[in-house]
Amino acid sequence: MNEAPADSVGVAVIGYAFMGKAHSNAWRNVGAFHPGVPTVRQEVLVGRDPAQVAEAASRYGWSRAATDWRSVIEDDSVDIVDICVPGHLHCEIAIAALAAGKHVLVEKPLANSISEAEAMVAAAAQAATRGVLAMVGFNYRRVPALAMARDLIAGGRLGTVRQVRVSYLQDWLVDDSAPMTWRMRKDAAGSGALGDLGSHAVDQVRYLLGADIATASGLLETFVGERVGDGGPEAVTVDDAAWATLWTTTGTVASIEVSRMATGQKNALTIEVYGSLGALRFSLESLNELHVCLDGSAGFTRVLATEAHHPYVESWWPPGHVLGWDSTFTNQAADFLAAIAVGTEPSPSFADGLAVQRVLAAIEDSAARSGATVSLEEPS
Amino acid sequence: MNEAPADSVGVAVIGYAFMGKAHSNAWRNVGAFHPGVPTVRQEVLVGRDPAQVAEAASRYGWSRAATDWRSVIEDDSVDIVDICVPGHLHCEIAIAALAAGKHVLVEKPLANSISEAEAMVAAAAQAATRGVLAMVGFNYRRVPALAMARDLIAGGRLGTVRQVRVSYLQDWLVDDSAPMTWRMRKDAAGSGALGDLGSHAVDQVRYLLGADIATASGLLETFVGERVGDGGPEAVTVDDAAWATLWTTTGTVASIEVSRMATGQKNALTIEVYGSLGALRFSLESLNELHVCLDGSAGFTRVLATEAHHPYVESWWPPGHVLGWDSTFTNQAADFLAAIAVGTEPSPSFADGLAVQRVLAAIEDSAARSGATVSLEEPS
Amino acid sequence: MNEAPADSVGVAVIGYAFMGKAHSNAWRNVGAFHPGVPTVRQEVLVGRDPAQVAEAASRYGWSRAATDWRSVIEDDSVDIVDICVPGHLHCEIAIAALAAGKHVLVEKPLANSISEAEAMVAAAAQAATRGVLAMVGFNYRRVPALAMARDLIAGGRLGTVRQVRVSYLQDWLVDDSAPMTWRMRKDAAGSGALGDLGSHAVDQVRYLLGADIATASGLLETFVGERVGDGGPEAVTVDDAAWATLWTTTGTVASIEVSRMATGQKNALTIEVYGSLGALRFSLESLNELHVCLDGSAGFTRVLATEAHHPYVESWWPPGHVLGWDSTFTNQAADFLAAIAVGTEPSPSFADGLAVQRVLAAIEDSAARSGATVSLEEPS
Amino acid sequence: MNEAPADSVGVAVIGYAFMGKAHSNAWRNVGAFHPGVPTVRQEVLVGRDPAQVAEAASRYGWSRAATDWRSVIEDDSVDIVDICVPGHLHCEIAIAALAAGKHVLVEKPLANSISEAEAMVAAAAQAATRGVLAMVGFNYRRVPALAMARDLIAGGRLGTVRQVRVSYLQDWLVDDSAPMTWRMRKDAAGSGALGDLGSHAVDQVRYLLGADIATASGLLETFVGERVGDGGPEAVTVDDAAWATLWTTTGTVASIEVSRMATGQKNALTIEVYGSLGALRFSLESLNELHVCLDGSAGFTRVLATEAHHPYVESWWPPGHVLGWDSTFTNQAADFLAAIAVGTEPSPSFADGLAVQRVLAAIEDSAARSGATVSLEEPS
Repeated sequence: MNEAPADSVGVAVIGYAFMGKAHSNAWRNVGAFHPGVPTVRQEVLVGRDPAQVAEAASRYGWSRAATDWRSVIEDDSVDIVDICVPGHLHCEIAIAALAAGKHVLVEKPLANSISEAEAMVAAAAQAATRGVLAMVGFNYRRVPALAMARDLIAGGRLGTVRQVRVSYLQDWLVDDSAPMTWRMRKDAAGSGALGDLGSHAVDQVRYLLGADIATASGLLETFVGERVGDGGPEAVTVDDAAWATLWTTTGTVASIEVSRMATGQKNALTIEVYGSLGALRFSLESLNELHVCLDGSAGFTRVLATEAHHPYVESWWPPGHVLGWDSTFTNQAADFLAAIAVGTEPSPSFADGLAVQRVLAAIEDSAARSGATVSLEEPS
Repeated sequence: MNEAPADSVGVAVIGYAFMGKAHSNAWRNVGAFHPGVPTVRQEVLVGRDPAQVAEAASRYGWSRAATDWRSVIEDDSVDIVDICVPGHLHCEIAIAALAAGKHVLVEKPLANSISEAEAMVAAAAQAATRGVLAMVGFNYRRVPALAMARDLIAGGRLGTVRQVRVSYLQDWLVDDSAPMTWRMRKDAAGSGALGDLGSHAVDQVRYLLGADIATASGLLETFVGERVGDGGPEAVTVDDAAWATLWTTTGTVASIEVSRMATGQKNALTIEVYGSLGALRFSLESLNELHVCLDGSAGFTRVLATEAHHPYVESWWPPGHVLGWDSTFTNQAADFLAAIAVGTEPSPSFADGLAVQRVLAAIEDSAARSGATVSLEEPS
Repeated sequence: MNEAPADSVGVAVIGYAFMGKAHSNAWRNVGAFHPGVPTVRQEVLVGRDPAQVAEAASRYGWSRAATDWRSVIEDDSVDIVDICVPGHLHCEIAIAALAAGKHVLVEKPLANSISEAEAMVAAAAQAATRGVLAMVGFNYRRVPALAMARDLIAGGRLGTVRQVRVSYLQDWLVDDSAPMTWRMRKDAAGSGALGDLGSHAVDQVRYLLGADIATASGLLETFVGERVGDGGPEAVTVDDAAWATLWTTTGTVASIEVSRMATGQKNALTIEVYGSLGALRFSLESLNELHVCLDGSAGFTRVLATEAHHPYVESWWPPGHVLGWDSTFTNQAADFLAAIAVGTEPSPSFADGLAVQRVLAAIEDSAARSGATVSLEEPS
Repeated sequence: MNEAPADSVGVAVIGYAFMGKAHSNAWRNVGAFHPGVPTVRQEVLVGRDPAQVAEAASRYGWSRAATDWRSVIEDDSVDIVDICVPGHLHCEIAIAALAAGKHVLVEKPLANSISEAEAMVAAAAQAATRGVLAMVGFNYRRVPALAMARDLIAGGRLGTVRQVRVSYLQDWLVDDSAPMTWRMRKDAAGSGALGDLGSHAVDQVRYLLGADIATASGLLETFVGERVGDGGPEAVTVDDAAWATLWTTTGTVASIEVSRMATGQKNALTIEVYGSLGALRFSLESLNELHVCLDGSAGFTRVLATEAHHPYVESWWPPGHVLGWDSTFTNQAADFLAAIAVGTEPSPSFADGLAVQRVLAAIEDSAARSGATVSLEEPS
């Protein structure tokens, strides 16, 4: 045990690319904006390339760098293992870290296969009996405007929610001369837009409504079927875009559309919720805003979710001083730390991560059956 | 023959309710904004209630009122019969009017059944051999911004169109104590949101892309299954909302969502088109605007489609002076008159109206098969 | 007296250019959308060019054309004289028409000089004693969203109004090679952006607040000082843009900015009103919308002012079916007809038109004194 | 000298309230997002209350806390002194720190009086001869969208800039029962909305145009003249809102409106720039967006300024991942560090800070003369 404060927690992040940087940012800043949570010690950043991970560790505020995740999860200075590597590595590291008694945060998606995800859920359940906690990182649950949306729905302000519309549109594959990468190979990436963008969409439906998905009908399309990789032309084996219509167990219908081919759209996650008493609209590119139609209002009111009473906002900045995308990870870290401090199960759990993947699998299954509805109540 | 100018045309409108009023407005004003077309004589307005139709005829600028459409279609002063009555009456009147040598404009949808629509298409084809013309009234084709959108697509400015998203959301049935009406009975109305709103959505997909629909997957939902009518509680037998995913014969995927239960949305027809080179966005509640992303633009440009060079705008008002919803009917009347003047087939034809209905039927068919894709290439 | 209905009124419009066309449209349509007002007979359209005015009269629905306004104002079939000619002709025609016992509507601005405007006010006052009515045509008072704004303010929903911001931005003079016209000569046009656009801005401040202007500080600028006309280069003698800060007699401060040089802005009249209890925002390019912040709301609510209970809307179209710019003139005609029907003074009166011009003159006066505040309580 | 890397710099921040927190955030994070600049050592946070500053230092990542700024500016571990205390303390600390050879960053406004600001400018000039650098913290210069705006203007893409419109609207004093504080006393705060919000507005005009202000006409208003403080009712001696019209030395006209009484507006800094070839619009509440009208575009294009090629963005996040308000301070710290690394004068300089204050003083001077224009070319 090192000389850190008795109530501080040591963190290790595995992975130092895009998500490793975003998570590092969260651990570096969580104390400044969430004073109530345990103090963080940024112990170690883990990556394969010794020079690069050392440089990243220095820039991102870590005490040291390492290349062997196995030794790190055994390190006494480490209380939390935060897994930011590609999805096919999640399962092994997470299960090992939980076994080693470390709290585990896994970046979404939980795993690349349902069987892996199920093993992780089992490991998390076992670990929980020992007070070791696990969470999956659907960071958009920590957008203040979306947390506010969920609170409004949970509080009955929208009445019975009937329809949800979620689209997540990007344009980085519009150019058909964009080169082949592993992200377009099914064996490496699992799926395309469906897994990458659709997982956020499905998680938001579950999160906002507090309900499970009962049935799914979906279709997939690959608009550019062949791209040129290092070895010449190669078949694209994942979807460029996906469409789904879901029924929740409580009778809400959610439509989902995701695409990497939506020219002019950069990171356009858009959510609409229509209930018997009210409605909501949200757009990730304007993530500080929630548009609400409540209490018989004649239209939608733009609420800037930067007031102290809005979720997560209290210790950030004064009203009107907008937060960035990165703040969602900081808030996520705070929630995980708070759960650890009191020993309650954090949310979303590994079981939530598995549930999302079952929905995505059901959509693929439906697509393979030309869109015929698939039931999730007995898992496919 | 009356003493009107040799090149003037006499018009009769059948029906004086909402659509009759909108069409009357068009005939009254078309000459002021479209100087090149034949002069209109507003001959006669037809309705069942003698007092009410007389009062409406007076207010809407008609020379006279009548209650018997059969005599009107035989009237020598009448050159155009414009049918604005409910859908189940379209077929009989249209076929009779065409047989009587009158040009016929039918408000959408073309008919309540495919068999009726087929009969109307046959009658129109036969009439065309005699120089008698027929058109169906999908007025949103005459929104300048949407006509501009179509021109951009037809001109290749968007490249290969991959995805289209159309939603048409209204909220007039949100309240589950809203009373039962004929619009919620399948035998009278044919369908619910699907036919009423979905027909516009499908027509826009066909119009904007200039392509037919090849396959359809769809689902329907009735959120409020029973409403109280004059005779007490009664089952709602049409859909409150509908979802569909369509493939065109040219490989574009179009998603459609329509609803009468979208709290806070009044008349929200929203269209997005994503191509390999550009993209477009449109919203009916801001119908003078088209948002375009073209020529590698970094984002969407809001174009106010009120310049003289925009479709239909030349003879309206100076730039920046916005048009209303009613102008779409005026432009539609101008297009019909122009087609009559030169004897070319107007667009959209009865065949277009039938094609839309086949798509709607395929969506219903798919919904009955839990969303499994239905092919339209051999009509269902 | 002709054989028209006893309660119908005959109208003559003087002028058939842009405003003559807009007013013709109003008279042609007012009966269809405002059933409660007297029936209109479109008697005569007056213009200088016999062929052109005859053609316009035919297209715009007039029974006949004329070239001599003096005979028209003596014509027994004419009850209302609607003056749409350039401002320097308003005074003579309006006074003559009132003397002839005709109700008079004058397009804004009331006149080109304060002395003319004062003479017109005197003539209107005298005519009123004979039951002959006069109104000036600030059509934006008839935008449903702005009438709604005024009602909210008058009803106290905004509390004490402290600040108003009005800008009216156009871009038709951005290009410095745009040719010289009479509109850029002070002797012909009176002023530039100030009179043309500023008059609407000042009228809206007075209308929305129901208060007079007490003081004005203003500045003017001519960005392009010379333009090429038919006779070669010529000095521009009016303003391209103007700025003013006004205090009302009730202590509200209103800022005004108008320009013909605002690149990318077509017809951008924007109004913001901030009170102790609420606020409003409006933009003419989205004229069906009013954004309101009332009752302690966390932000602005977009209200689509197309509901039957909104001002002027009842007899137009169902909710969500937006009105165009031209509808403001139709509503204006209805208000004038309603005032005539019951014999009450219509609003805005000639005195309102004079008041606006006094404010514009005070702004020019202040600008000549480098912005020093000018008092309007003893007219300058 | 401590054992830090040879090229690292030690930083002390004086003040730990709102601005101290924002600047601490910047120093803690600058290395992660701007890899090219010298490494930062967060040496010491200074404040008056020992317990509170110690707690803040711990939360915000500082190595230690201190209460005596005089000893801190003599500390060898400190290379940069960053002054975040109220304005009346800026002058003494800044001059002392510069004299001690420390680079100095002063939060805006530079000082509370022109004489203080002039002394600071002189001190900075003297320090510069010794390679000691000074900068004032107008953080909105570091918004990527605004830096992009400036680059477009400087590159001639807007042509000759004619009009600029800047408004900065907040609503935190709308309630007239809000209590009296030092911010509403002229002796303590210097001015009200004018100094607080107007300083940002004036700095942006100078920054975007790269031009000085030549003349100013302005007016002030205090809507709520008395508020209740600890000692009972007390006169408010600063402005609640201010209006100004400025001419730059290059002939651009800029209008400015600032208010703390704009109901419903939280932090609404809005900037519009109109040039002969193009135009720009920006809103701080959507700070990742710049709306541009360039190259003869038919309207404004929304550009999400999150691409790697946009100013400051390269080392943040991928396209479409929006930045928060706090990022502006991080970028500011990077610019200051970069200037220090190469020994060039950072921008905005103390002279820029003085220039802004002279404009604010001229506006107050003009207001005292009822709005008459004041020349700045011979400083007032």
